[in-house]
Amino acid sequence: MQEKGNISIHTENIFPIIKKFLYSDHEIFLRELVSNAVDASQKLKQLSGIGEFKGELGDLRVEVSFDEAAKTITISDRGIGMTAEDIKKYINQIAFSGATEFVEKYKDKGDEQQIIGHFGLGFYSAFMVAEKVEINSLSHVEGSEPARWICDGSTEFEISEGDRTERGTDIILHVNMEDSAEFLNEARLQGILDKYCKFLPIEVKFGEKDKQVEDGKDDEDKPKYKTVKEDNIINNPAPLWTKSPSELTDEDYLAFYRELYPFSEEPLFWIHLNVDYPFNLTGILYFPKVKNDFEMQKNKIQLYSRQVFITDEVKDVVPEFLMLLHGVIDSPDIPLNVSRSFLQADGNVKKINSYITKKVADKLGELYKKDRAEYEKKWSDIGLFVKYGMLSDEKFYDKAKDFALLENVDGEFFNFDEYKTKTEALQKDKDDNLVYLYSTDPAKQHTFIQSIKKKSYDVLKMDGQLDSHFIGTLEHKLEKTQLKRVDAETVDKLINKDEKIESVLSDDDKEKAKTIFEKAINDKNSTVAVESLASDEMPVIVTMPEFMRRMKDMQRQGGGGMMMMGDMPDQYNVAINANHPLVAKVLGSDQEDAKEKLARQAYDLALLSQGLLEGEALTQFINRSVELSTN
Amino acid sequence: MQEKGNISIHTENIFPIIKKFLYSDHEIFLRELVSNAVDASQKLKQLSGIGEFKGELGDLRVEVSFDEAAKTITISDRGIGMTAEDIKKYINQIAFSGATEFVEKYKDKGDEQQIIGHFGLGFYSAFMVAEKVEINSLSHVEGSEPARWICDGSTEFEISEGDRTERGTDIILHVNMEDSAEFLNEARLQGILDKYCKFLPIEVKFGEKDKQVEDGKDDEDKPKYKTVKEDNIINNPAPLWTKSPSELTDEDYLAFYRELYPFSEEPLFWIHLNVDYPFNLTGILYFPKVKNDFEMQKNKIQLYSRQVFITDEVKDVVPEFLMLLHGVIDSPDIPLNVSRSFLQADGNVKKINSYITKKVADKLGELYKKDRAEYEKKWSDIGLFVKYGMLSDEKFYDKAKDFALLENVDGEFFNFDEYKTKTEALQKDKDDNLVYLYSTDPAKQHTFIQSIKKKSYDVLKMDGQLDSHFIGTLEHKLEKTQLKRVDAETVDKLINKDEKIESVLSDDDKEKAKTIFEKAINDKNSTVAVESLASDEMPVIVTMPEFMRRMKDMQRQGGGGMMMMGDMPDQYNVAINANHPLVAKVLGSDQEDAKEKLARQAYDLALLSQGLLEGEALTQFINRSVELSTN
Repeated sequence: MQEKGNISIHTENIFPIIKKFLYSDHEIFLRELVSNAVDASQKLKQLSGIGEFKGELGDLRVEVSFDEAAKTITISDRGIGMTAEDIKKYINQIAFSGATEFVEKYKDKGDEQQIIGHFGLGFYSAFMVAEKVEINSLSHVEGSEPARWICDGSTEFEISEGDRTERGTDIILHVNMEDSAEFLNEARLQGILDKYCKFLPIEVKFGEKDKQVEDGKDDEDKPKYKTVKEDNIINNPAPLWTKSPSELTDEDYLAFYRELYPFSEEPLFWIHLNVDYPFNLTGILYFPKVKNDFEMQKNKIQLYSRQVFITDEVKDVVPEFLMLLHGVIDSPDIPLNVSRSFLQADGNVKKINSYITKKVADKLGELYKKDRAEYEKKWSDIGLFVKYGMLSDEKFYDKAKDFALLENVDGEFFNFDEYKTKTEALQKDKDDNLVYLYSTDPAKQHTFIQSIKKKSYDVLKMDGQLDSHFIGTLEHKLEKTQLKRVDAETVDKLINKDEKIESVLSDDDKEKAKTIFEKAINDKNSTVAVESLASDEMPVIVTMPEFMRRMKDMQRQGGGGMMMMGDMPDQYNVAINANHPLVAKVLGSDQEDAKEKLARQAYDLALLSQGLLEGEALTQFINRSVELSTN
Repeated sequence: MQEKGNISIHTENIFPIIKKFLYSDHEIFLRELVSNAVDASQKLKQLSGIGEFKGELGDLRVEVSFDEAAKTITISDRGIGMTAEDIKKYINQIAFSGATEFVEKYKDKGDEQQIIGHFGLGFYSAFMVAEKVEINSLSHVEGSEPARWICDGSTEFEISEGDRTERGTDIILHVNMEDSAEFLNEARLQGILDKYCKFLPIEVKFGEKDKQVEDGKDDEDKPKYKTVKEDNIINNPAPLWTKSPSELTDEDYLAFYRELYPFSEEPLFWIHLNVDYPFNLTGILYFPKVKNDFEMQKNKIQLYSRQVFITDEVKDVVPEFLMLLHGVIDSPDIPLNVSRSFLQADGNVKKINSYITKKVADKLGELYKKDRAEYEKKWSDIGLFVKYGMLSDEKFYDKAKDFALLENVDGEFFNFDEYKTKTEALQKDKDDNLVYLYSTDPAKQHTFIQSIKKKSYDVLKMDGQLDSHFIGTLEHKLEKTQLKRVDAETVDKLINKDEKIESVLSDDDKEKAKTIFEKAINDKNSTVAVESLASDEMPVIVTMPEFMRRMKDMQRQGGGGMMMMGDMPDQYNVAINANHPLVAKVLGSDQEDAKEKLARQAYDLALLSQGLLEGEALTQFINRSVELSTN
C-alpha cells in the first residue's frame, strides 16, 4: 500500500464556519463589504491610470443605505463591477484570492496601492447578519451584460441576468430578523461606519443630513435660512497621515487631533511616522497632556491597515511605555489573522516596536536641543513617558539620559550632568559618595526641607507615579551616587561628613532627658536617642531610615512576597535635640506632670511634621494645644 | 441566462489560512492535538461501554514527548486509532466533522459525554509549528492494518503501510526550526500543557521526574533513599467541579483552590455551580480575600469547555461585579468561534451571566441567615462585591438589600432595617428627614467624630473604594434619608433640629471677633461666621458643605466634564465659636499682635483637625507652637 493524494476541503462543512464563526464580532460585516466596495473603486482608478480603462471615472463614491420596510442593507459602488463570469470566478470559489491575482498582475505597473482583501473571505461575512445576499453588478468592460447573483446561505447559488444599467456593484443584504435586527437601525450603522470606515480612501455616503443654508433676506434685510438635505459623507478620504509632513502646518496636526479626539485638550507635540523599509508604516503619534487618570488614557492609538480601522488594542505593536500616546498607525505589514486580530509572535511587529521607540527618542532629543525652556515647561507631562521608558528599556535609557530632567523643589530643572555639577561641591559624604536628597511630597515634608536648605543642600522633587522605581534606576546607573529622602535621617546625618556639634547637656542630663521622653512617647516601635544637633533645629525629630522605608514601600506595592516587612510595624528613630532650649525647659521643670506634657507636645510636633499624627493622638494634641493657648 | 450552481472552496488557497492564520496564538497547536488524543481515548471508552469494542481498554494514558536531536514533538494515544481508510475520511477531508457524525451516531446510547473537536480543524493547527506532520496509527478494529500518513504542509499527502503494533495513534510533528524552535523545549511544553491541559479527563504524561524513595537501611538503621524516575502526569483527570457537591468536604474545596492558585490565601467561601437546563454549566466560584491591589485580582476565573482550558478572559460570561471572584467555569454551551474566543452577542452568554448573579445572591443570603456573626467577620471582603453588585445591577440590589450591612466607626454591623431603627429616635431633622452621618477616614476625622458622639449620634464608616458611589445609591433607594459626612457642617447643623444656643458674646463683640479672625485667616476662599456653639466644642471649626464636596469628588474621579468644579478652589466655612473661652481671650488681649497670633493658632488647630494644614503653613504652625511651648 502506498498512495499519494490531495487534501480536500468539504465546502458544505466549512461554509458555516466561514459564515458565522470566523469573526467574533458580527458588526464587522459592514467593514468587510464597504472595504470591498472601496477596493473595487480603487481598482478602476488603477486601471484608468495605466490606460486599461478608457471610460469616464465620474464620481466613485460608495453608498451605504438601509430600508427598514424591506429589511435590507445595501452597499453600492461605481467600481470595476463584475460580469456573470467574474462572479463565478471571484465569489463562487471561496478564497480564490482574486485580490492576490490582481496585485500580481499589476504590481509592476507603478501604482503602489494595494488591495485589502487578503483572503477573499470578507464577502461571506455578509452571512453573519443576512439570510439572503444579492449581488447586482455591471462590469466596467465595454459591452458587458449586467448580472444578478442570489444565495440564501446554503452552498447553492443562483445566477441570472441583472438589471443594473450603471457600472458598479450593489450588495443587498436581506437581514436575518431573528438575530440581526439590530443592524436595521440608522444610529447603529452610523456607529459602525464611524468606527471602521472613517478614513477609507474613497468617499462613503450614508443617507442624508439636515443643513441650514441662506435663502434670501427677510423684511429687515436679515438673511433667512432654510433646511436642505445634504449628503452625509462619513469619511475623510485623505487623512493627515497619508500626506507629506512638509506640506503640513501645526494647525493641520491640531485639527486632525480634534477630529480623532473631540473635546480633548491640545496635545503637547507629535511625531509623523513614515517608513518604507524594512516594513511599510505611516502614522501620527501625539503626546497628550497626562491627566490624573492613568488608565483612562490608554488604548487611544488606533491601528489601520490601508486606511481600514483594525483595532485600538496596539499592545505589542507599540512599546508598553508609549501606550499612553494618542494617534494613528497605518501599516499593511502588521500580520493579521483571519479575523484581523494581529499575530503577536511576528518579527515585523518587533521591528515596528523598536522603530517607534527610536523615533520617539529622536523627537524628544530634538525638542530638548531646539528649545530648552519650552521643553522644561512640558516636562511634567513628558517626564512620565521618559521615565517609564528609561525603566523598561535599556536602549531608551541610553538615549534618554541626555535629555531626561531632574526637577528640584524650587521648580528648577537640570539634566543629569548639570545636577552632578550643581551638587558635588557640598553634597559629598565622608566616603566621597554624592548624595542626592529628594522629597516625595514637598508640602508634607516642608519642615525637613527647610532644615536641609539651611545647609545649602538641594532637594529634588520625586513625587511622580514612577519616581520610586526611577530612584532605584538612578542609583544603579549613576556612579557613586546615593539617593535619600529628606526625612531618612536628621539633617547632619543625611550627608555624613563626620562633623561633631558639642552638646550643652551633660551626659547625666542626656540620660535624664532620654528617660523623660521615652516615658512620654511610650511606643516600643520607636528608638529614642539624645543627639547634639544645631540649636535652631527642631527639639524633636522623627525619621525612618531610607532602606527600611523603601522595603516597606515595595511591600505595599505588592512585591517582595517572602520578607513580609509590610506586615511589620513601622519603626522610627526619635532624635531629641540636646541643644534645643525646649529640652532644657523640660529638664528644668519641677513638676513630673508638666515635664511629660511638654515632652509629649514636642514629640507630637515632630510627628506632625512627618504627617504621622492622626486619630485619637491628633485629637489629644489639638485639645492640649487649645488648653495651653486658653490658659 | 439563468443558472444554478454550488459555491466551492479552493483547498490550495484556504489551506494556508487554516494552517497559519486561524489562531492568533501558535502554542494552541498542543491543546488541539492533546485534546484530539483525549477524544480518541474517550471514544474507545464509549464504544467499550456500549459493547461495540470488546477488547481490553488497558491504560488509556496519552503521552507527550519531544526529541531535540530529531526535532520532533510526538503526541501518542491508545484510543480508537485509525485505518488508512479512516485517515482518508477524517484527515484528508478537512472539516468533515467526524466528531459530529460520531456524536449523532451514539448520542442516544446513554453516554452524555461529548466530543470537543467542533470543527475538525484542530489537527491542522499542527502546521502552525511543523514543516512536516506524520500520523502513525493502528485502529481498534480487530484485524486492522497499521497506517502511516505524511504531509509536508502542501495539500499533497502520502499514505503508506505503518509499523505501529499497538492500538492507537502517534502524531509526530517535525518542528519548523525557522519560526518554531522555541517549542522544542521542556519548560515551554510543560508550560503550555499546564495552561491548557491541566484538567483533561484522561491522564496525560509528559516525560519523567525525579522522586526519592526508601531503599533499605544504613549501618545506623536509618532509612536510605534513592532517586527513581516517576511518570510526570500533568493533569488531574477528575477535577472537583465534575463531582457532586454532596460528596465533597470543605477541605476538598480548599485543596482544589490551592491547586488552582498556589501560595494564595484561603478563600472566604465558594459556590458550586451545576445546571443542565437551559444550558449546561458546571464550575466552582471562590470568594477571595480582597487585597490592596484591586486590578491584580482580576481575570482569575478560568473558562473551560469539557475540561479543556479556553481562556481566563471571562468578561461578559461573568457579570462585571463578580470579575474579582476566582475559580472555574466549564460549559460546552458558551459559543466559541473557530479560534475559540467566545462570541459575545450570544443569548446563552446572557443567560449564564444572570444565572451566576442569582446563584451568588442566593449563597450570600444563605450565609447571612446561617451565621450572622461569621458573615459579619467576612464583611470587609464580601462588602466590596455586594456594593459593586448593588450599584450596577438593579435585580441584585433587590436581593442584596436584605443582607447588605452597614458598619459604624465602632465596628458594629447593621442591616438596613436595623440601622434605621437604631437611628430614627435621635437623628431626624426638623423636616423629619433621617440623617445618616458617615466618615470616610475615621482616623483623620477623629475630632469631628468625637463631637458627634457627644450628641449620641451614630457614625457610619464609609472608607471603601466604592463607598462614594454607594452613598448616592443609598440616598436614592432609602426613603427620606440623607447622608452627610461628619465634617460637612458644625455638629448642631449636621442634623438641624432648630435648637438655638445662647451666645455669651454681644453682637458688637461678635463683629469684632469676626474682623480679627478674618484678618488672621486671610483667605478669600473661606467664609468666616461667628456662631453660638456649645462651650466644649472647638474654638474654631472648618467645614465643607456636603453638596460641594461631592461635586468636587466627582470631578476628581473624572466625571462631570462640563461643570469644571474640580478646577475651582476649595471653599470652606469657618465657624468661630462665640462661647469658647479662647475666643474671649482673643477679644480680651490688649496687643494687636498677640490677638492675631492666637486667632491664627486657633484656626490652624481647626485646619489640623480637617487634615488641611501642610507645607509652609504647617511649618509656621510648628515653629509657633515650639516657640509658645519654650517661652
